[in-house]
Amino acid sequence: MVQKRLARGGATSLLALLALTCGAAPAAAQETPAAVAGKLRDAAAADDWGYRFLERLTSEIGPRLAGTEALTRAATMAQRELSGAGFENVHAEAFPMTAWIRGVETGEIVAPAPQHLVLTALGGSVATPASGIEAEVALFRTWADLLAAPPQSLTGKIAVVTQRMVRAADGGGYGAANPIRRAGASEAAKRGAVAYLLRSLGTDNHRLPHAGAMNYADDAPRVPAAALANPDADQLERLTALGPVKLRLVLTPTSNENASSVNVVGEVKGSERPDEIVLIGAHLDSWDLGTGAIDDGAGVAIVSAAGRLIAALPHHPKRTLRVVLFGAEEMDYSGAAYAKAHADDAAKIALAGETDFGARKIYMLAAPAGSAKSEFTRTLSETLVPLGIYLGRDPALFAGDDVRGLQTAGVPVISMRQNGLDYFDIHHTADDTFDKIEPQELAQNIAAWTAMAYLAAETDVDFRALATAQR
Amino acid sequence: MVQKRLARGGATSLLALLALTCGAAPAAAQETPAAVAGKLRDAAAADDWGYRFLERLTSEIGPRLAGTEALTRAATMAQRELSGAGFENVHAEAFPMTAWIRGVETGEIVAPAPQHLVLTALGGSVATPASGIEAEVALFRTWADLLAAPPQSLTGKIAVVTQRMVRAADGGGYGAANPIRRAGASEAAKRGAVAYLLRSLGTDNHRLPHAGAMNYADDAPRVPAAALANPDADQLERLTALGPVKLRLVLTPTSNENASSVNVVGEVKGSERPDEIVLIGAHLDSWDLGTGAIDDGAGVAIVSAAGRLIAALPHHPKRTLRVVLFGAEEMDYSGAAYAKAHADDAAKIALAGETDFGARKIYMLAAPAGSAKSEFTRTLSETLVPLGIYLGRDPALFAGDDVRGLQTAGVPVISMRQNGLDYFDIHHTADDTFDKIEPQELAQNIAAWTAMAYLAAETDVDFRALATAQR
Repeated sequence: MVQKRLARGGATSLLALLALTCGAAPAAAQETPAAVAGKLRDAAAADDWGYRFLERLTSEIGPRLAGTEALTRAATMAQRELSGAGFENVHAEAFPMTAWIRGVETGEIVAPAPQHLVLTALGGSVATPASGIEAEVALFRTWADLLAAPPQSLTGKIAVVTQRMVRAADGGGYGAANPIRRAGASEAAKRGAVAYLLRSLGTDNHRLPHAGAMNYADDAPRVPAAALANPDADQLERLTALGPVKLRLVLTPTSNENASSVNVVGEVKGSERPDEIVLIGAHLDSWDLGTGAIDDGAGVAIVSAAGRLIAALPHHPKRTLRVVLFGAEEMDYSGAAYAKAHADDAAKIALAGETDFGARKIYMLAAPAGSAKSEFTRTLSETLVPLGIYLGRDPALFAGDDVRGLQTAGVPVISMRQNGLDYFDIHHTADDTFDKIEPQELAQNIAAWTAMAYLAAETDVDFRALATAQR
Repeated sequence: MVQKRLARGGATSLLALLALTCGAAPAAAQETPAAVAGKLRDAAAADDWGYRFLERLTSEIGPRLAGTEALTRAATMAQRELSGAGFENVHAEAFPMTAWIRGVETGEIVAPAPQHLVLTALGGSVATPASGIEAEVALFRTWADLLAAPPQSLTGKIAVVTQRMVRAADGGGYGAANPIRRAGASEAAKRGAVAYLLRSLGTDNHRLPHAGAMNYADDAPRVPAAALANPDADQLERLTALGPVKLRLVLTPTSNENASSVNVVGEVKGSERPDEIVLIGAHLDSWDLGTGAIDDGAGVAIVSAAGRLIAALPHHPKRTLRVVLFGAEEMDYSGAAYAKAHADDAAKIALAGETDFGARKIYMLAAPAGSAKSEFTRTLSETLVPLGIYLGRDPALFAGDDVRGLQTAGVPVISMRQNGLDYFDIHHTADDTFDKIEPQELAQNIAAWTAMAYLAAETDVDFRALATAQR
């Protein structure tokens, strides 16, 4: 019903306008790619279909944890949306995964100052006993301090690392701090700890902990792990400075090794070289605490809206545009599953990109390796200027977790960098909800991705050859 | 231990300096009140004792719900602090109250889009059955819409009001919206509703609901009531626009009618007219979700720090300064209890004030009624100018919930208005924690309250007579 209410109207008449102005008459077929890209860019900036799709996804589905029934509902909605938006070959590609389901999660300071702590279990964490773990805290203010702790020095303790991730314009503080979440439990367990807590990887000061996946090393006991809200990490710093602090931790997540998820695919068939693929992706799954608006409902809306506008062109671009909505990014499954399933035809993918960083404005294009002087990159960067995007000096080295498998298999990638100053204020928290999206900033992203995807599909440039020539 | 670590040093030597510069030698006894007030103001602005007391209160005690063991621990700490700060006659005055203790609180959208809602029970709410209430939503976007609903029109429904409180520089949007929380459950129940939800009275967009007390009318069934986080209210608005929405609500709070709390008192005995009292107060209790930093640990720190600096003067002001840390403001008990206990000696209270609005800067003095042209108000307003505070046109009409009972009994009041633009972003939420306090803004408050309390205790102005003369 939202769909009925919102997807019509302005959006539909805009598509009609696009068809009229982009060479519906045969004579106009000679319109330059730059001209078509410019019209697509301007049409996208004035279109709210992507914003409304994101509204439907985050409202009518809400949280979409991979391997759960909610993801299945989201995939059904996504296929319906892609079909309605004019995509062809809309389908879902299933893959197996281990699902991880959050349970009870409570933390209490038992002594010296009884009070509640706000925390959330890390994805993949084992459970505590149902009665919990009660133990003294060993607090480290930096990750290096934990790594410097001698073997057995944490025996029987709950290890806590309170290093804060750095706020940075490009969000780079997250990657730098990532080992604290990914590897902390095993590093603590190697030293004898019975559980592990970290200060959330987040730049906010709210009592909303940041979820996220972790990994266990093979050579360490598996101990439960959770992230504290930032003010709660502060509180533990203050109290441990006074003397011993005892915590009680209850985490009861469960795992299902026989779960599955899907990658949802839709295409705009190429008019001249349909076997060559330009792949743009985002991830449909989200963490369970919020409704996955910035991570990554926004990305889903961006690539879907881009494909919809390109599908509406009277003359499809030469190559096929393939939109992939990955179904288990947060749990580290979908990119690998896609690369594995497409190992034999990855060579057909001319270029891949992914958008998974919210809906703040893009400020920079990172072009495919070796393409800096190509007609494609020149045209694209000129098309993006009115959107406030410049061509970066360096080529795209990383384009997203879900296309990394393809990249490893030799697929060239492209990336567009977004303002990330406040992304990690709400990333992976309950606060990741639809109200956090600025429609005009989302529209700028859609405009850029539409222009990029069109030009990449229309160009004759061979990105593989350029990348190889440069090596 | 924090106390040992932090309260000494700078603060202690500052007190010594104050003693030296404020007439420790007999000759200097003729220093004007204005000069002493100015020195107190400057000493307070450079003192961190209040900030450190607030740190101890919010860390070593944490949440301090009235009628619970935590409030008792807080009262013990407060008496220790006041004694250590040089107050005399430090004691606690007990009063009976009904304690209300939060239980489980969960909200789930059952249909059409299963997902979790973030909410918190209102203080005083009855419980749902342990198995919860499952019912369809009747959503009203304004309070007036609910009031306009006919009798029985909500039979069997969960009534939801999603009107948003207005952000305002002086926080005035809160009072305007207060009936939605206070009276909503009974208004809904009169129309047949089985439960009541409101959009949190808060100006933020976080998944952190705002607690707060509510009242039941005598002529309506008592139905459970809770506040939704703002994004969750948005979500219900979107989903109810599509069709029927069914919720499942579980709230299991309990009440204890035989609980008690205390008001903690400390005094600086007057040097000439010790039976005349200048009373400054704040409230020691807090909601249970956060640690009560802005509401009202800050106020506790402000009035305690003011009294400490005045107690350190070699010549106490003429009147007695009495600091009262009220023990059940959030539950509406402590002000009434204090007024009742002191009905016979309220006439001795020359002036009363309360600070219960966080630690943002004071911008305006609202002087006692009829005092605009008095030597007291002229001197005080001149003393406050360097702090960026002006004398307001209107006298103090309201000074705080805990001194309202005294005011009703004829006690003159004074008030200082703070910047309230973001107060209701975190008021009554889990986010009300120590990290939200800006030390320099807290110090400005302490400086203003110290100067005000000193001048009110030192002056010969009879505020009662001025107020009466003006009527």
